[in-house]
Amino acid sequence: MLELLYWLDLFGVIVFAFSGALMAGRYQLDPFGVAVLSAVTAIGGGTIRDVILQTPVFWVKNPIYLYVILATAALTIIFIRCPKRIPKRFLLVSDAFGLALFAVLGTEKALTLGAAVPVAILLGMVTGVAGGMIRDVLCNVIPMILRQEIYATAAILGGVLFTFLLYLGLPEHIAIIGAILGALALRLAAIYWRVTLPAFEIIDHDESNK
Amino acid sequence: MLELLYWLDLFGVIVFAFSGALMAGRYQLDPFGVAVLSAVTAIGGGTIRDVILQTPVFWVKNPIYLYVILATAALTIIFIRCPKRIPKRFLLVSDAFGLALFAVLGTEKALTLGAAVPVAILLGMVTGVAGGMIRDVLCNVIPMILRQEIYATAAILGGVLFTFLLYLGLPEHIAIIGAILGALALRLAAIYWRVTLPAFEIIDHDESNK
Amino acid sequence: MLELLYWLDLFGVIVFAFSGALMAGRYQLDPFGVAVLSAVTAIGGGTIRDVILQTPVFWVKNPIYLYVILATAALTIIFIRCPKRIPKRFLLVSDAFGLALFAVLGTEKALTLGAAVPVAILLGMVTGVAGGMIRDVLCNVIPMILRQEIYATAAILGGVLFTFLLYLGLPEHIAIIGAILGALALRLAAIYWRVTLPAFEIIDHDESNK
Repeated sequence: MLELLYWLDLFGVIVFAFSGALMAGRYQLDPFGVAVLSAVTAIGGGTIRDVILQTPVFWVKNPIYLYVILATAALTIIFIRCPKRIPKRFLLVSDAFGLALFAVLGTEKALTLGAAVPVAILLGMVTGVAGGMIRDVLCNVIPMILRQEIYATAAILGGVLFTFLLYLGLPEHIAIIGAILGALALRLAAIYWRVTLPAFEIIDHDESNK
Repeated sequence: MLELLYWLDLFGVIVFAFSGALMAGRYQLDPFGVAVLSAVTAIGGGTIRDVILQTPVFWVKNPIYLYVILATAALTIIFIRCPKRIPKRFLLVSDAFGLALFAVLGTEKALTLGAAVPVAILLGMVTGVAGGMIRDVLCNVIPMILRQEIYATAAILGGVLFTFLLYLGLPEHIAIIGAILGALALRLAAIYWRVTLPAFEIIDHDESNK
Repeated sequence: MLELLYWLDLFGVIVFAFSGALMAGRYQLDPFGVAVLSAVTAIGGGTIRDVILQTPVFWVKNPIYLYVILATAALTIIFIRCPKRIPKRFLLVSDAFGLALFAVLGTEKALTLGAAVPVAILLGMVTGVAGGMIRDVLCNVIPMILRQEIYATAAILGGVLFTFLLYLGLPEHIAIIGAILGALALRLAAIYWRVTLPAFEIIDHDESNK
């Protein structure tokens, strides 16, 4: 069980590190700059979660995460010689995988450490969303959570589904896999078929800056 | 006394959650996106304060804050059908209430936990200012603290006034109310009558980006 | 030895506070707004380091840092009547000093507190980089780490050099001075002679926002 959590967590770190490195390809960054943007994206959310829970930060306890990020950034630089030709959807989809994984794993960790259910779901969402948010803010781009349909919603669905499946009495690894698939399906549906929720009304753009 | 602090704190959370939801109305966000921007604005400052003080984060201990934010976001969405028609001053004034409340309550909490006076005043300011700052940074808008007159100043006045009134020997609840009113009055004066302090000179805009 | 660390740390706080105040001169900020931007720049990185290490935050333990920042901001306002005439390089060079100092001192602190070497180097980089990053994000400017050559790289070099010199058996104060000079030399070389590393390829700007 712990094995499964660990591998899923590493996989989430890899996909987010990859999305950070892809984003870095839009700026003329040297390799260390790419590695930093990868790292911020991959461990930003989990760091905030652990700091808020006041539990030892996961990558301080276990530096293997840092090596995985370095390797991901290096492989991205080596194999993707021309980030320009990577379709934008690639970045969106790798971000969606990280979002779904981290939202569920973050909820799991918070529950394990004794947090109340709504707190755990919020911290799960933070784990899934914050790394990409910092990546976008540093790049001076409006974060996906404000631009994309069903972004926070998919992360929250992951946490809700996980606690619900646990509540139904399913074993934890089933609940984790089920919740990740649910959140991922919703987010991919939003990307591919433009599934949306009704939006809170918008004001026109001229006024929005003054 | 604890009662009073608690209600003022909840009131601060409500006005900041409202200001976050209003800001969200400028983007085409689904309801969960609105709730997230509300939450970040309402609990961002207090979270940073508690993390720096290394005391349990207030909403992790007491999830009622999260329900209050959800309710505020929901009511804002339901009753404000057209955020476009809300005058901009509304956002500024609700932000001013949150700023004054949180600056004083944050100073009080830090002092209670044994922080030195200048540390407590700085953490009070952080409590009042940081939530709105994160809201503005996420929305890619220059934060109010850099655009608005007498913003940090009002927050600092709140903390200074509170410690000064305590030092004079006034009972704590009088000191709290007095300091909140003082900070609020200064900030509202800046909004309505454009009270200002002399500014550090400005350079012309062409140079500022290169 | 502790003496030396302390003075270097204060010097780093002063140069970063100065760079924050200079940046504030580009906005029409009142004196307290200037002080806040100074403080965020000067103590942002070390605060994040201490929070992640879950050790008491340095300026909460020792408020002298806050007085030093206030004094630096006040002197900058008083003596630099016209921030417009300050050449841009001034800001870059003071930022470089802060970067080199904090990267090495941050690595030292993390190692002392028992962090693994790669964790310590990463936290050193965060100490050197994060304050300026928050300053730039608040001012809605792309952070230097994404715009400047050899920025993260110089910070990482500082941490690597420090652990390497320690590993060679040099006394700690020599290792600190040597590592600071190495990181500073690399960063200044990047500023003055445009030393660069090969960049990860860039995509054209039209696509980068959509």
